[in-house]
Amino acid sequence: MTLLDPLFRWETVDRFFSDPVRLQCMLDFEAALARAEASTGVIPASAAPAIVAKCRAELFDATAIAQAATPSGGLAIPLVKALTALVSKDSPDAAKYVHWGATSQDVIDTGFVLQASAASVAITLGLEQLAGELAGLARKYRSTSVVARTWMQHALPTSFGLIAAGWLDAVDRHAERFQETTRRSLVLQFGGAVGTLAALGDRGLDVAKALGAELHLPVPDLPWHSHRDRMAELATTLALLTGTLGKIARDVSLHMQTEVGEIFEPAGEGRGGSSTMPHKRNPVACAVALAAATRVPGLVSTMLSAMVQENERGLGGWHAEWETLPDIFQLTAGALHHLAEALHGLEIDTARMAQNLELTHGLIFAEAVQMALATALGRLPAHDVVQSAAKRALAEKRSLREVLTADPQVAKHLPPADLDRLFDPRQYLGASQAMIDHVLDSHAARLKTSSSGGD
Amino acid sequence: MTLLDPLFRWETVDRFFSDPVRLQCMLDFEAALARAEASTGVIPASAAPAIVAKCRAELFDATAIAQAATPSGGLAIPLVKALTALVSKDSPDAAKYVHWGATSQDVIDTGFVLQASAASVAITLGLEQLAGELAGLARKYRSTSVVARTWMQHALPTSFGLIAAGWLDAVDRHAERFQETTRRSLVLQFGGAVGTLAALGDRGLDVAKALGAELHLPVPDLPWHSHRDRMAELATTLALLTGTLGKIARDVSLHMQTEVGEIFEPAGEGRGGSSTMPHKRNPVACAVALAAATRVPGLVSTMLSAMVQENERGLGGWHAEWETLPDIFQLTAGALHHLAEALHGLEIDTARMAQNLELTHGLIFAEAVQMALATALGRLPAHDVVQSAAKRALAEKRSLREVLTADPQVAKHLPPADLDRLFDPRQYLGASQAMIDHVLDSHAARLKTSSSGGD
Amino acid sequence: MTLLDPLFRWETVDRFFSDPVRLQCMLDFEAALARAEASTGVIPASAAPAIVAKCRAELFDATAIAQAATPSGGLAIPLVKALTALVSKDSPDAAKYVHWGATSQDVIDTGFVLQASAASVAITLGLEQLAGELAGLARKYRSTSVVARTWMQHALPTSFGLIAAGWLDAVDRHAERFQETTRRSLVLQFGGAVGTLAALGDRGLDVAKALGAELHLPVPDLPWHSHRDRMAELATTLALLTGTLGKIARDVSLHMQTEVGEIFEPAGEGRGGSSTMPHKRNPVACAVALAAATRVPGLVSTMLSAMVQENERGLGGWHAEWETLPDIFQLTAGALHHLAEALHGLEIDTARMAQNLELTHGLIFAEAVQMALATALGRLPAHDVVQSAAKRALAEKRSLREVLTADPQVAKHLPPADLDRLFDPRQYLGASQAMIDHVLDSHAARLKTSSSGGD
Amino acid sequence: MTLLDPLFRWETVDRFFSDPVRLQCMLDFEAALARAEASTGVIPASAAPAIVAKCRAELFDATAIAQAATPSGGLAIPLVKALTALVSKDSPDAAKYVHWGATSQDVIDTGFVLQASAASVAITLGLEQLAGELAGLARKYRSTSVVARTWMQHALPTSFGLIAAGWLDAVDRHAERFQETTRRSLVLQFGGAVGTLAALGDRGLDVAKALGAELHLPVPDLPWHSHRDRMAELATTLALLTGTLGKIARDVSLHMQTEVGEIFEPAGEGRGGSSTMPHKRNPVACAVALAAATRVPGLVSTMLSAMVQENERGLGGWHAEWETLPDIFQLTAGALHHLAEALHGLEIDTARMAQNLELTHGLIFAEAVQMALATALGRLPAHDVVQSAAKRALAEKRSLREVLTADPQVAKHLPPADLDRLFDPRQYLGASQAMIDHVLDSHAARLKTSSSGGD
Repeated sequence: MTLLDPLFRWETVDRFFSDPVRLQCMLDFEAALARAEASTGVIPASAAPAIVAKCRAELFDATAIAQAATPSGGLAIPLVKALTALVSKDSPDAAKYVHWGATSQDVIDTGFVLQASAASVAITLGLEQLAGELAGLARKYRSTSVVARTWMQHALPTSFGLIAAGWLDAVDRHAERFQETTRRSLVLQFGGAVGTLAALGDRGLDVAKALGAELHLPVPDLPWHSHRDRMAELATTLALLTGTLGKIARDVSLHMQTEVGEIFEPAGEGRGGSSTMPHKRNPVACAVALAAATRVPGLVSTMLSAMVQENERGLGGWHAEWETLPDIFQLTAGALHHLAEALHGLEIDTARMAQNLELTHGLIFAEAVQMALATALGRLPAHDVVQSAAKRALAEKRSLREVLTADPQVAKHLPPADLDRLFDPRQYLGASQAMIDHVLDSHAARLKTSSSGGD
Repeated sequence: MTLLDPLFRWETVDRFFSDPVRLQCMLDFEAALARAEASTGVIPASAAPAIVAKCRAELFDATAIAQAATPSGGLAIPLVKALTALVSKDSPDAAKYVHWGATSQDVIDTGFVLQASAASVAITLGLEQLAGELAGLARKYRSTSVVARTWMQHALPTSFGLIAAGWLDAVDRHAERFQETTRRSLVLQFGGAVGTLAALGDRGLDVAKALGAELHLPVPDLPWHSHRDRMAELATTLALLTGTLGKIARDVSLHMQTEVGEIFEPAGEGRGGSSTMPHKRNPVACAVALAAATRVPGLVSTMLSAMVQENERGLGGWHAEWETLPDIFQLTAGALHHLAEALHGLEIDTARMAQNLELTHGLIFAEAVQMALATALGRLPAHDVVQSAAKRALAEKRSLREVLTADPQVAKHLPPADLDRLFDPRQYLGASQAMIDHVLDSHAARLKTSSSGGD
Repeated sequence: MTLLDPLFRWETVDRFFSDPVRLQCMLDFEAALARAEASTGVIPASAAPAIVAKCRAELFDATAIAQAATPSGGLAIPLVKALTALVSKDSPDAAKYVHWGATSQDVIDTGFVLQASAASVAITLGLEQLAGELAGLARKYRSTSVVARTWMQHALPTSFGLIAAGWLDAVDRHAERFQETTRRSLVLQFGGAVGTLAALGDRGLDVAKALGAELHLPVPDLPWHSHRDRMAELATTLALLTGTLGKIARDVSLHMQTEVGEIFEPAGEGRGGSSTMPHKRNPVACAVALAAATRVPGLVSTMLSAMVQENERGLGGWHAEWETLPDIFQLTAGALHHLAEALHGLEIDTARMAQNLELTHGLIFAEAVQMALATALGRLPAHDVVQSAAKRALAEKRSLREVLTADPQVAKHLPPADLDRLFDPRQYLGASQAMIDHVLDSHAARLKTSSSGGD
Repeated sequence: MTLLDPLFRWETVDRFFSDPVRLQCMLDFEAALARAEASTGVIPASAAPAIVAKCRAELFDATAIAQAATPSGGLAIPLVKALTALVSKDSPDAAKYVHWGATSQDVIDTGFVLQASAASVAITLGLEQLAGELAGLARKYRSTSVVARTWMQHALPTSFGLIAAGWLDAVDRHAERFQETTRRSLVLQFGGAVGTLAALGDRGLDVAKALGAELHLPVPDLPWHSHRDRMAELATTLALLTGTLGKIARDVSLHMQTEVGEIFEPAGEGRGGSSTMPHKRNPVACAVALAAATRVPGLVSTMLSAMVQENERGLGGWHAEWETLPDIFQLTAGALHHLAEALHGLEIDTARMAQNLELTHGLIFAEAVQMALATALGRLPAHDVVQSAAKRALAEKRSLREVLTADPQVAKHLPPADLDRLFDPRQYLGASQAMIDHVLDSHAARLKTSSSGGD
């Protein structure tokens, strides 16, 4: 752990990428390999338990392995050497079957896939938690009017529930993508020195099958040593999610500005609030999500650039993945976690939303008034009437409605009841209620499918 | 067209991103909108044909629209204005129903989706063409031995068919991903000013449905104005493909080096070959694919960074997509096209492959010899015997086999037939033949599924 | 020109990257080469004018050259071929001296350097214009109070002049960097086929020197065919500038939000303002600058990735630069131009700045009040008094000052004059006035140095 | 340290970015602040030693600070709180002057600048070491012929010394850039809450000056809280260097391929060499440098994207730098270190270089022969003669020289001595010797300037 980990990461996922877990997952591969080879008769049955017994990370000197990784260009060689030595002490005969027929890349890649599999379960749960919060907001505030902002300027009213439904809709797509990606990407890597499994003679595929079963990983059509699209797809799918998390955070932080004050991250002991600056409430979770959304795109470009790997094992490209993909997992998980937590305790000031709708003194309704007048006056005259009223309203700091009411020509065609309607934000919900229903229905349907064990 | 377009692009896809097509797709949206609104009774039936009649790009002054785009911040406003003026000339009544209830983003985004849909059909065909070439190579060279190279060094023999099968396997995954992504991403954008369709009263969703039908685009649960994950996913899916194209190109260019000379891009009039440098044959298609693989990752990071868009319409993020996503489409398509063409005419020098297997004078077989001797001599003595033979072979520039044959201890345990086998690259095919079958079977199955119209 | 060029680009710089200018700059290289080789006696004196006469872009069929670029992998070969044919028609003897001793990379790279040199002059002028606007703002609003915002929340007062001085200070650093970079990067590329100038025998360096003089380009110690740090540095230096332009645009657009309303991009015919949404004023220039700041980082990562070029001429990396670096130049120039223009007409609402300082009802001054009370009451009691006053102020929507004035304990220690001072934003200018002076002085000093021609 | 640190990093630089050093540098800021404020009379003279005494990282519970960083959004608040508590125990009076007038960003940013300053000294030394190795190669192999490769194909002969001089020339530019950048970027950050130093009344600049002197850091014209170009420039300058390191590594690894075998990373115990694969020698340092060159461009795009920070303190952008910039420093330093070490022990096989020049059986000299014949036969006939000879040579696997010698027409015009010259790689050195001298002279001049302390 570095000092900044708790700030940017989510402990639940973070630990799957710790050094001890990294070693353990590599050792899990070696243990499963021994079992698979014993069960298929490739190595003596007695070798497996002797090897398996030593496949425990706490038996290894991680620092020594790390130091030895430098000249050999990776963790696998020193780890296998250390494992062989350990096994050898108790069972010299078994020792020669350690890592039998496998290559460094098999253990490094499959080890990572095991880490990623565990992390993916947690991320899936985090996604559902976030989606749940958003569904709650969409339902609760479905008809709460709030001003919609385009180009960072007031446009027209919308509903806050629709905003939340938009967030939910995107998050649901990410859940679907993540399921597709993990299904495709989290598979066994096992090919021996150059991907032919030649060292295992005619037993290569039998061992691969047994190994996959041991590790609960699908066995792909062939090893993927230098075809890294699966790893890169994990990166891009997480990055798409992080982009949406950044968008939500951007929205929340804009709504939370001192001048806007519509929604707030939860306050709490030592969080946001400051005793000396009582007005100050820093959107800490938004900062974390925005930082992740700033960092992950660059990391993804690394994963994509790294795909261009040479021949049967790349030089530099493969190595570039080793820290980058875990970083992407951790940053995404951290943003997901911190944002879900903040949304859970989100404070909504609906009164302020209503007030802000009045900020332009009714000018945000000008277009609708003009369209209403147009049927009576014709389009151009209507435009002129409204525009001059708007100018007067701006100049005299009066409300547009007040100015319009005072205009006899308007009064004739738009009686107070009509003006009430035109200046009522609730009249601008349009199709939003049905849209929210569609999103909530799709969300419920997706939950049902995925909980019913679909893959 | 710029001077470099033919080099980096594929005309078939390129034209979908030309200025006239961009305008036409935006006009197609406006035409379809008029039809949809007329058919749902939202605008007068007579307005539609009057509007539709003017929705032809050649009627517009593209330069004037481009110039007017600057102050208004996009193409939509000046285009709609110009369309309105055109319609107005013949049908003043119809003119007021141009773009009815829609917003700039509706026409810009849906216009792009139409361009991308057309391009995607071509890319899908290109993918199948490339896959077809690769399947051919995998079949034809399934048992052709070639040295596998790891860390850019000779490792052990493999089969060239397995190399091609690895390329094919990745390309097949990209075809699957591209189908998933286009299904999810290529949908209608239609939400009006702020995504509520409020201007259409209670008819918003009816119009949306009719509009989707007109344009053959699915209607999503809600508009996606500032949720850009669909556009970003198009980018990432294309980028994953480009990464694999770059990997194939890297492999081909490494095999094509003067010192290696195993496979070659096709020669041709004005291509590669040079009358004055008769030995020179530049891998031009590889350069194009590698250039794309160098460029697309950065463009993808832009698309991902741009996802963090403000509120109901972003400031800068949305605009950052406008040239970036077309560039990604075009670079990917160009790399796909040029590489497929090169692979179609690929020349394979199997004799050179066989020669290169001898380059290390048999040292690439040392490990296997040692394992064979180990059963008789024990592991350590076997290691010593082979290592000293290897050193002698290197020093005296003799073949390892020759040196070993001269060693009575080796001769005793490894009769000539055994040595024949150990020094025969074909004995190193391992599981590669079954792997190739698996890949070809999966490829055939995928083709069958996608041609039967399933998705 | 594409439809989006006027929106994102600056015509003054844009044209240097047009196809005709690209061809012309390559032809300028060929003309200068002929002159240099004639003047050094390497080719017959009579050949030069015959070649030079044909080095005019309008004599060439650009489309044909573009098409021929594909098989040959670049523009140089078809262009040289076409030039040779043109020269040959009038002067068959001179034709054989076209491109004498040069290689494709010489003409492509030096051609680009000529384009970039011209563009750089314009960018330098743009930088000075922007800096001039910012210096004006810093001077004019040096003591205009405005609330400083941290974490997108009100913090304490600052001066708007200090904000402008911060922008200026950064822009001045970019001007310095750009001067260093152009001096280092814009140099002649001339090395012949592999960088040895061997085809010119012992006259290579003489020709290089004469060629540099012809083109007004410094001659570097050796050719830089596959060392691309100079090109990449142009990219990074422009990107640093674009980052600052994005930061300024982000600031302006935040200040311009409907709820904030402190500063505005200029309004104008067809710009921002909308007759139907009279309250709406879209920050178009900010969108352009923010779009550039979103796009350029990805393009820079491409330029950096592309640096890893093979041996004496790269495969793919070099090609990846050809469209990327011009894009970076154009996007940076466009952002610079549009933002400078917007800042020139920037509207400042100092009354609104003053109002916004009151938005928290004095809470932004709480910390200072507490520190003032602490000397009398002790730190902790002071903290308690202020905190409870702040809570009351928030709850009762009264100003903190009012609440404090009503507290006899406060009144005893902080007479009205002291409270006046504590609640006066002007008392929070701190060292800002001296800081502004420093920045303006440094700016003036830099201008003096660069106009006196020193570098 | 993570398991992969020793592989990708350089311990000498790595430790400056460890957690304890990070804390210590932040504490160094606090100590220097106390001293500066005491020396300027802003805080009591007695407070300084009491504060300074506790500014030792080992007195702090790093894990607790890290945990507390999450709700407060950074390390500064919990660190200052812990420091205050520590001081308070011994000197309650002094405790209230901890962090006096400073803000979180002052301590975080200046703390990082102190880390970066230390790291930069080591990087500068590493650069000089690398340059020294390269200068040695350029000198030693100045006239050693080797084939130049363009587009990954044999082109013409060059000298290996020229290749090394090209590497050196680039590295020297990076040393110059790094000096400019560190001079501009490594400056004090000190502005108080919002950059005005208002909390220090009229003493702000005096304290800043004293603080800069304490920390040996220049004081800039104004604080740079949300102007991050200095940090981003550190990133881009290091990235440019890493690009060149990747280019050198790409070259070395291409030369080291089994089929090429011209230069080799040093072998060593547990390095590269393998007892069982005696032919195998993995270019481990190249892999490290190439991995860095793959990773840093993406990280740079993050730093550039992060520049767009809001107002007086950014939300997310600033936070995105905290792990990214240290990563860039460490990856660059690691690549520099591992590559310099590999170059120090580089093995050069000049015999193999000579052999490889023969690989095309003289075809690489065809162009020169043709030019030599042209003066006698005319250009076209010469071309025909050589082309047909080349075809015969290729078809019959004979050397071009042999075929040409047998051609009476050639024999007439090119006597054996001429052919000797034309087929002698040393005749292709062109201007390379002078170029190498220029580079070595410039290198020597730069060393002299920088060691004489000029900047």
